[in-house]
Amino acid sequence: MPILQPIVNMAELLHQKGITDVLVSPGSRSAPLTLAVVRHPALRVRVMADERAAGFVALGIAQQTGRPVAVICTSGSAVYNLAPAVVEAFFQQIPLLLLTADRPHEWLHQQDGQTIHQPGLFGHHVKRSYDLPADYTHADSRWFIERSVNEAIDLAQFSPAGPVHINVPLREPFYPTAGESFTAGPVRTIDTLRAEPGLPTDSWHRLLQEWDRHDRILIAVGQLPPNPALRHMLAKISEEFGVPVVGEIISNLADNGLFITHTDTLLANLNESVAETLQPDLLITIGNSFLTRNMKTFFRRYPARHHWHIDPVLDRINDSFQSLTTRVQASPLAFFEKLFSDLDYQRFLQGDDDDGSTMFLQTWQAADRRAAQLVFRSLRQPEDRLTDWQATQHVLANLPEGSVLHLANSMPVRYANLCGLSEQQQIDVWANRGVSGIDGCLSTAVGAALATDKLVTLLIGDVAFFYDRNGLWSAPVPPNLRIFLLNNDAGHIFRIIDGPGQQPELEPYFETPHGYTARRTAEDAGVTYQICRTATELTSLLPDFLQPGTQAKLLEISTDKLVNQQQFEAYRATLRQAD
Amino acid sequence: MPILQPIVNMAELLHQKGITDVLVSPGSRSAPLTLAVVRHPALRVRVMADERAAGFVALGIAQQTGRPVAVICTSGSAVYNLAPAVVEAFFQQIPLLLLTADRPHEWLHQQDGQTIHQPGLFGHHVKRSYDLPADYTHADSRWFIERSVNEAIDLAQFSPAGPVHINVPLREPFYPTAGESFTAGPVRTIDTLRAEPGLPTDSWHRLLQEWDRHDRILIAVGQLPPNPALRHMLAKISEEFGVPVVGEIISNLADNGLFITHTDTLLANLNESVAETLQPDLLITIGNSFLTRNMKTFFRRYPARHHWHIDPVLDRINDSFQSLTTRVQASPLAFFEKLFSDLDYQRFLQGDDDDGSTMFLQTWQAADRRAAQLVFRSLRQPEDRLTDWQATQHVLANLPEGSVLHLANSMPVRYANLCGLSEQQQIDVWANRGVSGIDGCLSTAVGAALATDKLVTLLIGDVAFFYDRNGLWSAPVPPNLRIFLLNNDAGHIFRIIDGPGQQPELEPYFETPHGYTARRTAEDAGVTYQICRTATELTSLLPDFLQPGTQAKLLEISTDKLVNQQQFEAYRATLRQAD
Repeated sequence: MPILQPIVNMAELLHQKGITDVLVSPGSRSAPLTLAVVRHPALRVRVMADERAAGFVALGIAQQTGRPVAVICTSGSAVYNLAPAVVEAFFQQIPLLLLTADRPHEWLHQQDGQTIHQPGLFGHHVKRSYDLPADYTHADSRWFIERSVNEAIDLAQFSPAGPVHINVPLREPFYPTAGESFTAGPVRTIDTLRAEPGLPTDSWHRLLQEWDRHDRILIAVGQLPPNPALRHMLAKISEEFGVPVVGEIISNLADNGLFITHTDTLLANLNESVAETLQPDLLITIGNSFLTRNMKTFFRRYPARHHWHIDPVLDRINDSFQSLTTRVQASPLAFFEKLFSDLDYQRFLQGDDDDGSTMFLQTWQAADRRAAQLVFRSLRQPEDRLTDWQATQHVLANLPEGSVLHLANSMPVRYANLCGLSEQQQIDVWANRGVSGIDGCLSTAVGAALATDKLVTLLIGDVAFFYDRNGLWSAPVPPNLRIFLLNNDAGHIFRIIDGPGQQPELEPYFETPHGYTARRTAEDAGVTYQICRTATELTSLLPDFLQPGTQAKLLEISTDKLVNQQQFEAYRATLRQAD
Repeated sequence: MPILQPIVNMAELLHQKGITDVLVSPGSRSAPLTLAVVRHPALRVRVMADERAAGFVALGIAQQTGRPVAVICTSGSAVYNLAPAVVEAFFQQIPLLLLTADRPHEWLHQQDGQTIHQPGLFGHHVKRSYDLPADYTHADSRWFIERSVNEAIDLAQFSPAGPVHINVPLREPFYPTAGESFTAGPVRTIDTLRAEPGLPTDSWHRLLQEWDRHDRILIAVGQLPPNPALRHMLAKISEEFGVPVVGEIISNLADNGLFITHTDTLLANLNESVAETLQPDLLITIGNSFLTRNMKTFFRRYPARHHWHIDPVLDRINDSFQSLTTRVQASPLAFFEKLFSDLDYQRFLQGDDDDGSTMFLQTWQAADRRAAQLVFRSLRQPEDRLTDWQATQHVLANLPEGSVLHLANSMPVRYANLCGLSEQQQIDVWANRGVSGIDGCLSTAVGAALATDKLVTLLIGDVAFFYDRNGLWSAPVPPNLRIFLLNNDAGHIFRIIDGPGQQPELEPYFETPHGYTARRTAEDAGVTYQICRTATELTSLLPDFLQPGTQAKLLEISTDKLVNQQQFEAYRATLRQAD
């Protein structure tokens, strides 16, 4: 058997276990892995020199496809450059398979290049870490490798999905000799037939009884990948049973006249008497993290008497509102489907067509409409001066139907959340809210655009953009990517939030103005570049910019940080008055 | 006491324990740390948005100053972006103090932003990891913080120096209120009086006896920071006792007519009979890693009967030549000073003015001269076509006396090693050979230029340059930096080394051509940009380019990868003939 055969077989195993996409960063130690995946006819392999960008591109692909993406890098500090994407994938529950080449461990601390402690390098931030043997000759070693790869790919996908690390120590030779066979032999895949979690009947009884005891029931939705069936079911429950469904832009619950979406404005500066009219008795939460402080603060300050969290994973108690009373092991969709049908049947038995208790929903909806109007008024600018927030509103309102929206941290996702989207637009919304870093937002959007034929629009600030500009380097930028760069020449969030704005160090040590525009970066990357400074310009550029085309495009929206600040402060002043 | 007082005091403690430089990446959670160091009158604080670049800039400053540099970043994936620099510092033994802001640990896995498992995040790649309490109010907590910071700064500097991590969980408020005092109270520094390791007399007896028993004694020097006293002592030993001192460009032992410096060429393709004339009986090694495979292979294939490694640290057995017999706990300088004086005294007692055994040294020196001539011949190009290697030779020959040279991985340091430097130039040579990554070579040179008034020249390839271009972003580029960018539009090393050059995947999956020039990157960064394509152009540009000035400069040397390859293959063919 050729010495590299187990590595060649590994590529075949990736394929048979359903992996379709691989990200490779060049290296010599990793060459056997690279050749194995490149020579496999069914794997799509993309190359990026900067491992940090490669990791986030892989994350973006995995978000779109729902399948684990394999990431290959060489030994040494290369592996650490993957870590920012790994930790985001871990908390965002996105499956990645990290294949890191390594020197055999006997070379550690022997002054050899690119030799670090790789096994377990990602610590708590992978679901598991495997360390393959450096010697493949023994049959038991080959058994271990095959079994581990099977297990790792399963594990990456099992809920909660996440990154899994396979460290691959490799000895020379790294390359097949001329004429040496380099095709996969037979591999053994191990299938897994998974049970679905189903609550026993007495648990459902208890839940239904508890439901019946409450008049003010509310469903709060954290970050959720796009899920039309769940959205549909939540709308039915809201409508039929008068239950407010409260979300943020990252919940993928766009405005349908029913859902409560202007939560950041609605829940700001509430006085106690208003807050009490909004306080639920029974709170049901689903999804991952919540975006805004106002959302979290409201549910912490006005806790529900009962709070159910619906999650198929029982690993840890997630009590972010500090009010949790019941954990329900179920997928949100399955849970609400069963709940709806049980409630509906119960109502049928009771001959009760309408339970009449839509007051609570109406209170929330009225507050939501007031919040939407307040945002609308705040966005009217007397002159043609363009702010980040206004630009966001323009962009969101003009997104092509059925396209994909990526929202970068830190201000773009917040501005977009203030604006909202409407259901008719059918926009899929993504944001790196696993750990909310700015470090890979551009690369993640590049990955998304590589994995879908839809138009992918990224809304990003200047610090996040330049931080991650290697996402545009060393691989063709996909033509369906549209970047809106809100360039206020600063880490603008520090001026907006309380605290740093009052310190004399604001500009040099927090905002760090840099004077960059993206023109040269875009030119280097072969990305069409345009710039605008007024609302009129933006409006006239948008329709053409958002057309499909053969080249990625970047529209730099140049704004003044002081004007941005004025607008936001005026908005906050209005909130205080409204209170 | 103001709630942030222990953080303010920490800045004073950094100062009192000798820290002068701090790198800050902006963040909100880390604001108390940022304000504390910025408001301290004696700390020089620099700001860089990209933590990866900030970490390497800190490394470059610490290399120059020999003092730990403090690095401050916010919580979440920001911390992981420091890791590439941390692991390089760990293996290169450079002191860093990593102050990472964190959320209090009760927020972990509670869907809160930027909250990851930070304590112990750097695993085996820091000397120690501290985790401060989130609550400072108890006197014992304040005692723990003060003691830990004292200990951490000591530890970072103790041999082997290296990075130390202090994780700093912080609760709001992060900013002092108007009028709140923000000056350091009294802090307690704990001094440490360290013993110097001194070998007992009987150990010296044993070493001297062993020395006397050998005719063919050789000193091989791995990577060493510039150390004129040690260089002087090694020259005396070589001359007086006929001992070859064998090094590479990263050993900081430039050509003085005595040292053996063309080792990569000299030791290539040795036939057995020649190799045996060069094989030592007693090998003495000092320093960190060796650069070239030829060096390592020679000493592994022709091991000395006795091999001493001189190192003050006994932590691990470093046996990179696989021939070690004796570890001697001593600093190289102290060891060779004592050895020289003992040998000299012994010779005086024996009335022996000259021990006559310079044959071995002469054999090595003759081989070194032949190697130098071979390199000289290989560098003659018939036309005016410029190669990476030739350009390196030009640059090295023209460096200003007493300047600092940074050599990037992967090819520049190898080309420079083939060329060598002469002692009269008094060049300090640095390269990130701890783990030999390309990820921070530019930022490290930026750090060096910030920390010295000397001219700092960086020789770097295109992949390493663009990978790390954020080293030029968001902080003024120091005017004493000169960048020579060898741009062959590819990861050129893959074409040069055996293996990938023979694979059809070479260009798309290893070299990854990108078509970038550095013009736009330099313009964005306010760095003067020039480009040249021929030896004549380079020669005419060099004198002015290397003058001091008010702005950093970048000279892009555009070369053809095929011409580079031809030249290198001709060199290797000559080596095979020479054999």
